[in-house]
Amino acid sequence: MPNDTPTPQLFFQTANAYQRTQALKAAVELDLFTAIGEGKDRAPTLAQRCGAAERGVRILADYLTIQGFLIKTGDRYTLTADSAMFLDRRSPAYAGSVLGFLHAPKFTEAFQNVSAAVRKGGTATGDGGTVAPDNPIWVEFAKSMIPMMAKPAEEIARLVSQMQLDVKRVLDIAAGHGLFGIEIAKRCPQAEVVALDWPNVLAVAQGLARGAGIENRYRTIAGDAFRADLGEGYDLVLLTNFLHHFSTATCESLLRKVHRSLREGGRALTLEFVPNEDRITPPPVAEFSLIMLATTPEGDAYTFKEYEKMFRAAGFTQTTLHPVAGSVEQVLISYK
Amino acid sequence: MPNDTPTPQLFFQTANAYQRTQALKAAVELDLFTAIGEGKDRAPTLAQRCGAAERGVRILADYLTIQGFLIKTGDRYTLTADSAMFLDRRSPAYAGSVLGFLHAPKFTEAFQNVSAAVRKGGTATGDGGTVAPDNPIWVEFAKSMIPMMAKPAEEIARLVSQMQLDVKRVLDIAAGHGLFGIEIAKRCPQAEVVALDWPNVLAVAQGLARGAGIENRYRTIAGDAFRADLGEGYDLVLLTNFLHHFSTATCESLLRKVHRSLREGGRALTLEFVPNEDRITPPPVAEFSLIMLATTPEGDAYTFKEYEKMFRAAGFTQTTLHPVAGSVEQVLISYK
Repeated sequence: MPNDTPTPQLFFQTANAYQRTQALKAAVELDLFTAIGEGKDRAPTLAQRCGAAERGVRILADYLTIQGFLIKTGDRYTLTADSAMFLDRRSPAYAGSVLGFLHAPKFTEAFQNVSAAVRKGGTATGDGGTVAPDNPIWVEFAKSMIPMMAKPAEEIARLVSQMQLDVKRVLDIAAGHGLFGIEIAKRCPQAEVVALDWPNVLAVAQGLARGAGIENRYRTIAGDAFRADLGEGYDLVLLTNFLHHFSTATCESLLRKVHRSLREGGRALTLEFVPNEDRITPPPVAEFSLIMLATTPEGDAYTFKEYEKMFRAAGFTQTTLHPVAGSVEQVLISYK
Repeated sequence: MPNDTPTPQLFFQTANAYQRTQALKAAVELDLFTAIGEGKDRAPTLAQRCGAAERGVRILADYLTIQGFLIKTGDRYTLTADSAMFLDRRSPAYAGSVLGFLHAPKFTEAFQNVSAAVRKGGTATGDGGTVAPDNPIWVEFAKSMIPMMAKPAEEIARLVSQMQLDVKRVLDIAAGHGLFGIEIAKRCPQAEVVALDWPNVLAVAQGLARGAGIENRYRTIAGDAFRADLGEGYDLVLLTNFLHHFSTATCESLLRKVHRSLREGGRALTLEFVPNEDRITPPPVAEFSLIMLATTPEGDAYTFKEYEKMFRAAGFTQTTLHPVAGSVEQVLISYK
């Protein structure tokens, strides 16, 4: 039988892909990665440390090895560099907590019925999905993403410091954890940051601002970015992971507001999943569209061409695209 | 930043892997693959054919392209060879119905709490999992696997016909859809097949035996393989996808019974997921262990060494391993 005979392997693998998610979740719950990081490297000692059955640990650790999270040598398991960085609880970049956000019922329930979302062309959850006002999911998001976002926030603050822009007034729209604005405030001692988000989310950002010692340069606007008075005269407006939740028309109306709030020569900085024009590469970026289909009424992962058009329609003269080291997302800088 | 800087990509990809499962399920429900197979190759015509929104179809089809199910050229989608064979409803090997089995609540519920199974060292569903007596999941299995199993059943019948064994009496333990025994009966006109399974499952196999015109050579034993009187003097006993549900000790006790039921010179033919000794390769085979951990009290994907030992302990003189073209499973032939 030739090698190119069709096989149902991809079908089976994908039909069972949900098991990968559940295995990872179990390993995080059992703190298996931390135990291995501590040097417990065989099933019997790991079982003892994790309060689990030896047979259970052996099967789970083998499965995680197959998925690329562990390395197995004989009957010993060790962490990959990625797992040591993001899944060992002792690492400052520990990402286990992010599962609280990624697996929030709001998301998993939206994905229970993808057909309905495809039929409708938007979330079928019936209540506006994740963009409903004051959705508690954003508090979970703000809290759980903190360790993951430290590095990208640093990278973006570095980008801002290279922009040859005198940054004194920054507006952080849908600030979430607030890390992007806070990191800029740390780098630009004269900068004052105004963070906008739902009130319960702002509490998280304010806590981090205090922790960073910049609370006297940190102000907030509680509410809806589309309705709130944003103020004016900003040097820089941040739009991080926000525009993808909305239609082109809705984005444009917000961008007009953003344009008005900027001083002449000011800039909007957008952090986004920006797929190539083919909409299928790079995979982790292009895949993001489906999350928007299932969880929002009209959101999408827009291409650079689409973003450029939206910003132009809102009055911006030019938009440029920049990679962010260590992230699959990219930064757009749009000039007033 | 060097290329080998740790990234959280695998973590995110795995945390969201459940979305792949749901996207595939949606495409099967909407019959998107058949529509593309029929030549409707752009989002607008596909949307019309599937009763869905154009935007929904575009995002789903892009996602399925990223996952390897479709090919996108410009804005046109076509099926891969695998998708044409297994996901176009007009194909005789259509596998969409298999989702009914793979996503039976029994499985998905068992995977809701993998931690509990790892702690316990076996299924935490509390009722014996899938091996509970007369479990209706096996009727679903028998029905939904039929189109997928035609090819492997042919391959195995071919293997049997090459065995230089005078096959007159065949016992098919846990026959399920019965295809393995039926295909052998079709090739060996003198063979009589005795199929053993739960009564409601046997009804499926009997239907297929009638369809194949071999019903006058097809008998059944309703009940539990561990308790039933198997009869004796068989030339060949089939054990397809059965042993993995049980512990080594339980398998051995059944194999002793199988050994007694065979005539001198008779053989047992086992179809199984047989991972290499490292238990992590080949991936689709080694992964199967986790399904057994989550859904059975003591089942596993046993290595060849483990199976060889079980068969030897039960009285078999020799066991040999054989690939099955088009399948990741392998056949073991054990000699009395």
